[in-house]
This record gives sequence, structure tokens and C-alpha cells, in this order.
Amino acid sequence: MLKGFLFSAVEAAIKQPGRLDLGLVYSDRPTKACGLFTTNTVKAAPVLLTAPKAAKGEIQAVVVNSGNANACTGPQGLVHAQSMAAQTARALKLDQDKVGVCSTGVIGRPMPLERIEAAIPGLVEGLSPDGLEDFSRAIMTTDTVPKVVSLERNLDGRQATLVGVAKGAGMIHPNLALPPQATMLVFLMTDAPAAAPVLKASLEEAMPASFHGITIDGDTSTNDSIIFMANGAAGGPEIEDPSSPAGRTFFASVKEVCQELAMKIVADAEGGTKVVTIHVKGAASESEAGQAATAIALSPLCKTAFFGADPNWGRIIAAAGRSGARFDPEKVDIFIDDAAVCVEGGAAGAEAVAGAEKTMKGERFTVTVDLKAGQSERVLTTSDLSIDYVKINAEYTT
Amino acid sequence: MLKGFLFSAVEAAIKQPGRLDLGLVYSDRPTKACGLFTTNTVKAAPVLLTAPKAAKGEIQAVVVNSGNANACTGPQGLVHAQSMAAQTARALKLDQDKVGVCSTGVIGRPMPLERIEAAIPGLVEGLSPDGLEDFSRAIMTTDTVPKVVSLERNLDGRQATLVGVAKGAGMIHPNLALPPQATMLVFLMTDAPAAAPVLKASLEEAMPASFHGITIDGDTSTNDSIIFMANGAAGGPEIEDPSSPAGRTFFASVKEVCQELAMKIVADAEGGTKVVTIHVKGAASESEAGQAATAIALSPLCKTAFFGADPNWGRIIAAAGRSGARFDPEKVDIFIDDAAVCVEGGAAGAEAVAGAEKTMKGERFTVTVDLKAGQSERVLTTSDLSIDYVKINAEYTT
Repeated sequence: MLKGFLFSAVEAAIKQPGRLDLGLVYSDRPTKACGLFTTNTVKAAPVLLTAPKAAKGEIQAVVVNSGNANACTGPQGLVHAQSMAAQTARALKLDQDKVGVCSTGVIGRPMPLERIEAAIPGLVEGLSPDGLEDFSRAIMTTDTVPKVVSLERNLDGRQATLVGVAKGAGMIHPNLALPPQATMLVFLMTDAPAAAPVLKASLEEAMPASFHGITIDGDTSTNDSIIFMANGAAGGPEIEDPSSPAGRTFFASVKEVCQELAMKIVADAEGGTKVVTIHVKGAASESEAGQAATAIALSPLCKTAFFGADPNWGRIIAAAGRSGARFDPEKVDIFIDDAAVCVEGGAAGAEAVAGAEKTMKGERFTVTVDLKAGQSERVLTTSDLSIDYVKINAEYTT
Repeated sequence: MLKGFLFSAVEAAIKQPGRLDLGLVYSDRPTKACGLFTTNTVKAAPVLLTAPKAAKGEIQAVVVNSGNANACTGPQGLVHAQSMAAQTARALKLDQDKVGVCSTGVIGRPMPLERIEAAIPGLVEGLSPDGLEDFSRAIMTTDTVPKVVSLERNLDGRQATLVGVAKGAGMIHPNLALPPQATMLVFLMTDAPAAAPVLKASLEEAMPASFHGITIDGDTSTNDSIIFMANGAAGGPEIEDPSSPAGRTFFASVKEVCQELAMKIVADAEGGTKVVTIHVKGAASESEAGQAATAIALSPLCKTAFFGADPNWGRIIAAAGRSGARFDPEKVDIFIDDAAVCVEGGAAGAEAVAGAEKTMKGERFTVTVDLKAGQSERVLTTSDLSIDYVKINAEYTT
């Protein structure tokens, strides 16, 4: 049971009536907090507003809307984001610096501020320890399912809880500052008593194998945000040393929650029918492993072959070959799960191909590419490119 | 009338029976020749074989097959490519160094060499000045139409002809050495008497605004090849000075043929319903203009919006924003043809959007993005991402 956090959601008819589209998360006591935000040159107003507040480390409430990104909305957009924060702060009797704002939806449309402002009193009034489910639905756009992960762990003899909530299904190639992409919004809340540097370090350590380890379409959003709040309501001494038993447990928990949320995002990818993990190993350098994995994960030809359950490894090796990674094509091995479809740069037997075809008809498999050019590796999880992806994105918006 | 060049095509049942799949182009007299080949680390056997021959500058015949790429086929693949060249050379009574080989089709399958070798005598026997149409069909894969451009020009008082033939519909992001992509195969033949350096220089000058100015899916092929042959059969003095009247006319003709062929490739893009020109201007540097144009041209979200005739400029500015190009989002203007859908980083009026929607329902339009960060620009022509693209590529191959 996550202590000291309350949630709420209401219908504000931001894009259209008929669904929850305004949510609020609030800690009933002061927090340590941190955040990571999109590195896109084009940053939405709520990102411009909230990033400096997250840097101060005291965010205690976040008001979140779906249906409108409040991006490319100029000075007026910033005024709107500020108004959302100010009115929420007033109702919660908090300093404005402690209230973050996140938005997701269509770019370039003015926010329907009157409807949002009219909804905020009810939003605050509705705060409840049981509001998480509604909150997780209010932040969805093209998502088909809400995404929540919850863990309980013993820290220094006390039960602490870590809860993560995410949305994101398209425009996903997270590249936050560390560097994520869709619009991906992630809220992490814990009642563990983590010191600020421990909070930040645990999130940064979790990123490479979680949110920075996924890509759906290569399109980094203008609105990607992760906000992590710890309110210490579980009690006990503050976790200051990452290498202490409580510190190690805390780091591992953050990593686990982030990885599960990231996998939920890929599993709900727009139109996606498969979760495909690309594992490039034997690369000459980490950056080359990343280049090859990214080229394969984003190649329309590889992604449509995944959709068609076609073990067309020629497209995979060709994508690696244009990526900039150095390797000898005649040494490369490629596996679909355990089936070696390409051995030393050439076709394997019919049995391997048949095995790979069977594997690829499932919902989840791993493509391993061994470049045999060094010791570096990169794992990136992605979705296939389906007919429904095109339908969803040709019809979304206007 | 192109003098001194003969063409032929036969059915060799390379992938399956029932269509022309082996072609031959041959100059009945010595040539000056040059070539450009894929920069993919993974190079098909015919590329490895033919690039050094092109560098010698005397290619006088090219044997071309569709249905099999002869890529990732190891030492055996190279033996097969050599056999194709050797047998063609023998039948034509040419030195092997003067016979190039190009292949396009599935990667990683052994060539059906027996069927090809059995077909070569008939192929050579069938050579005819009237064989161009059949040749242009024999090299097609997912292409729906053959692609031929022919120009006649007066050079120093003599009529000379330049003919270009191309194939390519997917796996197109030409990046040749200069640097093209699908498999794109291009054959340029002229009876003009061009000196070798003039031939090469005219092709290199034509590349940026033609084959390097297009991308369909970002996937550079293992087999991309351009071969240019000039046999001087039109007569007259050799063109040696690019700035002479004949030189200027020749350079302009090569550029015109290359541009028309490149546009034919994009117009026949796999599943493509629209030809979209991305014009990024006002960039801080040429490389940044290129980064922004490439990010927009290859963004699945932009390409599906083009398919849906949706003037969703938020996706366009977001793609530019993640590209690495530097700019102030609040200065950016975006046009669909003449309709200013985004002015200074924000939404324009409903009239512009309505105009843009109407334009986007057509088959051809230009997206202009003015970053207002400098003087550099880049023009890149691409296709949309349609439901048929996914169908074609999920079903192709195995």
C-alpha cells in the first residue's frame, strides 16, 4: 500500500467529451523529487514550465491532461500551463514551484483553458488513495490499456512501496535528458525515504535498459516527461548510500518498475502485434552496437517482415550494413530466438528457417545479431510495423 | 535514336517462371564508362565484382538479373557473378573486364546458376536496337512500371541521344559512393563522345538533386548500382571541356535524365500514393538542412499523415526538432505548397488548413519548412507510408 499519495481524475472534454482526460497525483506531505524531459529542440509548454521545478527537487503534485499536447502554442501556451499549475497549487494550498504539469495529445492547438480551470476544483476534491486506476486511464491517448506497476519491498525493516504509471503507444523513441520518444509520460511514486541524489541516481541507472532501451517509431516527442516523487511516508532512516542493503534494494526496485513499464509501452505500441527485442552483440564499440540495433529496430523493411513473421534476415544484415557499424559481413551470425537463420553471413538450412517462422508467429521474440567485431552490445526492444499502425496514424488528429 | 547500343531480355525462371528476369545491354563498339555503387558495408557479389571493372572505365556490356540479389552468398556468390560475366563475355567475344553484372531480388539465396547459364546464349543472340523495352521490364522487382527516359540533344552540330533505365520501388535511400538506396539499378547509355572525366563528373554533379535527393524507406540496399556508358557512335569530337557549349549541354542532359528517373522511382514507391517533396530552408548548415529533411522524409508519423492527407504539421516540426538541426521553434514557418499551416511555430488559420487538406488529397505536393536559422537548404523527395506498403513488405520473399 503506497502511503501518502492521492490520485484523482475527471472529464474536462479537452479534445472531446466522454472520457477521463485530466488527472492529478498529490503527495500529502513534502517530497524529494526529480525529473527527466525530452531533448527535442521543440519542447512543449508544460515541459518548459516543469523541468526547472523538477530541478529544484520538491514537486509534490502533478496535474496531467490528455487530448492536447500544449506544444507549439507560443507564449499563450506557457501562460496556459502556468494557469493550470497555479490553480492546482491554490486548491492544494501548495507553493506553485511544487506543482508540475504534463500534457499529451495533438500538437499546435490552443488548450481549452476554461474547461480545464472549471474542472480543477472537482479534480482536487476527488483526491483519494484509491484514484490510481482512474488517473492511469485519464492520461491515455492512443494507448489501449492503462499501464501501472507496483512493487513492495522491505527497506531496513519497513515495508515500502514503489508505484509507476505510464502512457505511450506511438511517437515513442524516448530520448530524455539523459536521453526517451512517443509521447511517453511516466510517474514514479514511492513512500520510501530516499535522499534526493539517490532518487536521481536510481532513475538514471534504470534508463538504459528501460525507457532508453525501447523505440516504436523513432519519433521523439515534444512532451516526453518522467517525474519521480518520494515522500518517506513508509518511515525509517533516509536512504543515502546506494551500496547499503536498503540502497541496493531501492535501486533494483526502480530498475524493475521502469523495465516493466517500458515493456508495457512496447506491448501496447500503436498497431503493434509483436514485441521484438533486437540484441546486437560483438560490436566494435558501444556506439556502433547502438547504431546497428537502432537501424534494425527502425527499418520499415525489418519491421514489416516482423509483422509478416518472415525470417528475412537479408533485410536485417542490410540494415546493420547501412548503420555505420564496422563489421565483416562474412562473419555475421543472426538468430531468431534459438534458430540460426544466418551463419557467417550466409543462409542457414531450411530447418532453421522453419523454426524461425514458427517463432515469429508468436507475440514475442529476440533477434540476435553477432557482428563478431568486438565486445560491445546493445539491446533495444521494439514493435512491428502493421497495417493498423498506418490506419491509426493516417486517421489520428484532424 | 541511340546508336550502337543493343538490348535483350529472356526468361530464366530465376525466382519463378513466367516473366522476363535476365537482361543484357551491350555497346557494339568500345566505350568510356564509369559507375557508382552502394556504400552499405554489406555489398552483394555483383557489386564486389563490377565496381573494380567500372573503375577501369571500359565496361561495354552489363548482364542484369532480377529475382535474386546474390548478396550474402559468400565465396560461392562471387563465383556465380564471375561465371555470369565470363559466359556473357565469351558469347560477346569481349574481355571479361568489359562485362559488368548487376542483380536485384531476395538476399541470401544461392543463384540458380544453371538456369542463368542456360539462358545466356539466347540472351546474347536476342540483342537488338529495339530491345530496350524488354530490358527495362526484365530488371523490375516490386516495380509496377518500367522506367525509361530518353533525350536527344545537338552537340557540336550532331544529334546525340542519352537514355536512362532504372528499377527501384523499395529499399530506396540511395547512398552510393559518392553516396543511393532500394535496390536501385540505373543504366545510362549515350552515343555522345564524352571523355572519361567528363562522364564521371557529369554523373557526380547530377547525383545530389536526383538519386541522392530521394528516399523511400531509408533502407540503403546491398546492390545499388549506377553504370554509365558512352560509345561515341553519334560521331564528332570528344567532349573534354565541361564549360564548352557541348559540355554544358551534356551536363544538363545527364542531370535531366537522372532527375526524371529519380522521380519515376519515387512515383513507383512500394505502396506509395503520393510524391512528397520536403524542402528544408533557412538551416544553419547544409548538414543540418539534410538532417532535418531526412528526419521528416523518413518519419513514420509524417509519412502516415501524408497518406491520410492530414496537414499535421506538429509531426513535421517534432521530427525536425529531434533531427539535431539547431533552430528556434518559435520562428519556424511550414507550408504545404502555398498554404502556411504553421507560422512562427504556431497554428495558422482554418483557411490554410483547409487549403492544405485539399492539396494533400492530390498526388504531388511540397512541404516547405523554413527554420530561419541560416542560409542552407536541402530538397528531398519521398513517398507516403500506406497500408499497401505494409502489405507488400510483409508478404514479399519467403
